[in-house]
Amino acid sequence: MSRKTNLEINAPRLWGDIHETAKFGATPKGGVKRLTLGPEDKQVRDWFRTACEKAGCTVYVDALGTMFAMRPGRDMSKPPIGLGSHLDTQPTGGKFDGILGTLAALEVIRTLNDAGIETDTPLCIVNWTNEEGSRFAPAMMASATYAGEYTTADVQSRRDADGITVAKALDKIGYRGEEPVGQRKFGGFVELHIEQGPLLEAENKTIGVVDLGQGIIWYDGVITGFASHAGTTPMPLRKDALAALSEVVLAVEGLAKKYGPEAVGTVGEAIIVNPSRNVIPGDLTFTMEFRSPSSATLDLLHGGIQKAVSEISARRHVTVELVQIWRKEPTVFDRNFVDTIEESTRKLGYAYRRITSGAGHDACNLNAVMPAAMIFVPCKDGISHNELEDATQADCTAGANVLLHTVLKLAGVAGDPA
Amino acid sequence: MSRKTNLEINAPRLWGDIHETAKFGATPKGGVKRLTLGPEDKQVRDWFRTACEKAGCTVYVDALGTMFAMRPGRDMSKPPIGLGSHLDTQPTGGKFDGILGTLAALEVIRTLNDAGIETDTPLCIVNWTNEEGSRFAPAMMASATYAGEYTTADVQSRRDADGITVAKALDKIGYRGEEPVGQRKFGGFVELHIEQGPLLEAENKTIGVVDLGQGIIWYDGVITGFASHAGTTPMPLRKDALAALSEVVLAVEGLAKKYGPEAVGTVGEAIIVNPSRNVIPGDLTFTMEFRSPSSATLDLLHGGIQKAVSEISARRHVTVELVQIWRKEPTVFDRNFVDTIEESTRKLGYAYRRITSGAGHDACNLNAVMPAAMIFVPCKDGISHNELEDATQADCTAGANVLLHTVLKLAGVAGDPA
Repeated sequence: MSRKTNLEINAPRLWGDIHETAKFGATPKGGVKRLTLGPEDKQVRDWFRTACEKAGCTVYVDALGTMFAMRPGRDMSKPPIGLGSHLDTQPTGGKFDGILGTLAALEVIRTLNDAGIETDTPLCIVNWTNEEGSRFAPAMMASATYAGEYTTADVQSRRDADGITVAKALDKIGYRGEEPVGQRKFGGFVELHIEQGPLLEAENKTIGVVDLGQGIIWYDGVITGFASHAGTTPMPLRKDALAALSEVVLAVEGLAKKYGPEAVGTVGEAIIVNPSRNVIPGDLTFTMEFRSPSSATLDLLHGGIQKAVSEISARRHVTVELVQIWRKEPTVFDRNFVDTIEESTRKLGYAYRRITSGAGHDACNLNAVMPAAMIFVPCKDGISHNELEDATQADCTAGANVLLHTVLKLAGVAGDPA
Repeated sequence: MSRKTNLEINAPRLWGDIHETAKFGATPKGGVKRLTLGPEDKQVRDWFRTACEKAGCTVYVDALGTMFAMRPGRDMSKPPIGLGSHLDTQPTGGKFDGILGTLAALEVIRTLNDAGIETDTPLCIVNWTNEEGSRFAPAMMASATYAGEYTTADVQSRRDADGITVAKALDKIGYRGEEPVGQRKFGGFVELHIEQGPLLEAENKTIGVVDLGQGIIWYDGVITGFASHAGTTPMPLRKDALAALSEVVLAVEGLAKKYGPEAVGTVGEAIIVNPSRNVIPGDLTFTMEFRSPSSATLDLLHGGIQKAVSEISARRHVTVELVQIWRKEPTVFDRNFVDTIEESTRKLGYAYRRITSGAGHDACNLNAVMPAAMIFVPCKDGISHNELEDATQADCTAGANVLLHTVLKLAGVAGDPA
């Protein structure tokens, strides 16, 4: 075995960093509130910049505030292997979502420093701006702009609930960088993240080797029935918008199960207009989504719900408007990167499974313009975006070790056989 | 035929009064906003008092502002026959709900005056305070207090959204009377009202002879599932509160249809706690009601939904709390009064049907302490509590004529055979 096979990250140091940075925006219930580009985000960014510089990296910032910490490699003509995630959180978020992947990337660099290892290809830790999307829409805006989905000017003009633009928020914390978004090229990107779902825990696996990211269709819906007196309107004469929605909700559920196990469908929001205890709901709005790792399945789900909705609206004499507002095709992560993660995991002896990412991640956006893949570790009860979000030190360590060995393999070590 | 059989009310005069009083609180869309005990209610009350006095009545006011306009009869030892309804409206109400019954009662008196008819039993027009319940809860508070359901002091202390008590509101418009609530006894009460439902119009009937008032059960519900990520939580592991509610809504509908045609069931309000497009609804609150003219059917509906809810909550691993917050037994209107209305309708040659009142009315409260019954006339598309509320002059006239002849029969005319 070569010396790099035995290498392990410094588990207490990573765990310490996770808890150290959790102070920036700590909530009373043990979570983190660190909205992108706010004062707590500035605190963690400053901490991160200092830590990266202490680890020998040079930190660059692009025009959307994304931070790139470069560690030189033997062959500076090669584009770096990127590793990282994001440091912003949901309004009542946890200590691990995004943070684990970013701080594990830092820990990988420190481990290489301690071992005196120089990689062939340079490495670059990335902290992507606004992954969460809680303060500014859309989520993952910096990586999407990097991948060419939006222009920098468009995204800089997006406003938060108080009317503050991204540009103004960047300037306020001093993180509007000079570097054009997308200019810095990578040889690929690897992101470690908590699963945010229950599968690894349920199956007692330490590592998820993420080979797919679900495609998503988002819909906005409006149901127009007729609001009338709950006491005087006989059942057969009703045009009850809530009863119609109930059938839509169950149709969404039925379709997702039909195309399971990986397809999911959800009605997340439903608002009755002018609700009253003794009035039949006449008007309501709702949002709906389907996700699947297969584009063909997304088509079937889309067709299925259209059919169900027309049947429901005709039978109930209500109108149901269903507008598709967004469709994102499934992500098929780079096969070589995925295999490399699997190989590293197997060599390290961790129990693992291939897994589909149900949530969106920066790596999904990046996969469109470079080879990318992800490593998942379990989180307690599958809970994230919640102050209860939790992960074990052992699992975080394992994930960081897989990240280390994946990066070593991808970047190559001077003198070691590839 | 005796001279009273031919008697008809003055249709243009009644129609004129309806449109005259609609000016007090007129809305731009042709409706009326006349919240109980507000300035517009004072205007219509003053108008009504003057009109009743001009018609030879003496007007008394009780401690909750209910107005009693007494027309003497031949035998003043007998308690009067009451006739009337209410002059307050919903915030965006119409010109007919309550108003038709009150102004038709005035028209009946004027018609008797014009014909020089003295009844054996005195007559008393009543304008009940706060039937609508929009400004102060509960609805129908004055007739309920009259019938002994509440104390006057309790109701006088109820507050509107601005914190103003009923007592203060009464004083402000000068309608807190001296007369104790419930002191004035009646031989019975007849109330003319628009149907507020679609049946008469659908069946082309002019008159509804109301023999029953639906009983009501109101429930408050809470569903506790688990809010989790819409992308990462597989369908079988979800605890989706909205999907559970959907089954509850359809169970309510199914039960009401099963015990139809007169039973109805409605989920009127449903609020997801912290809704988000990509979060499975974890918690929601809702309200639910059943109505039926049969107490036994109410029991079956109650039992049926309990059973459905336990099945749904067990299968979906969510908790559903369903708390019965109110039960009002069905109203069985006085058989003699109902028969008298039917007989008058038949003699006048109007198409009619027996009908159940789906809405609550002051007459339902009064039926507990005196013989009472109601006359319905159609309203356009069954719409009420809406500025679009409408009724034809012909139907309003027909209803007032039925009221006239019913009252003549119940009160007796000096010299005519009973």
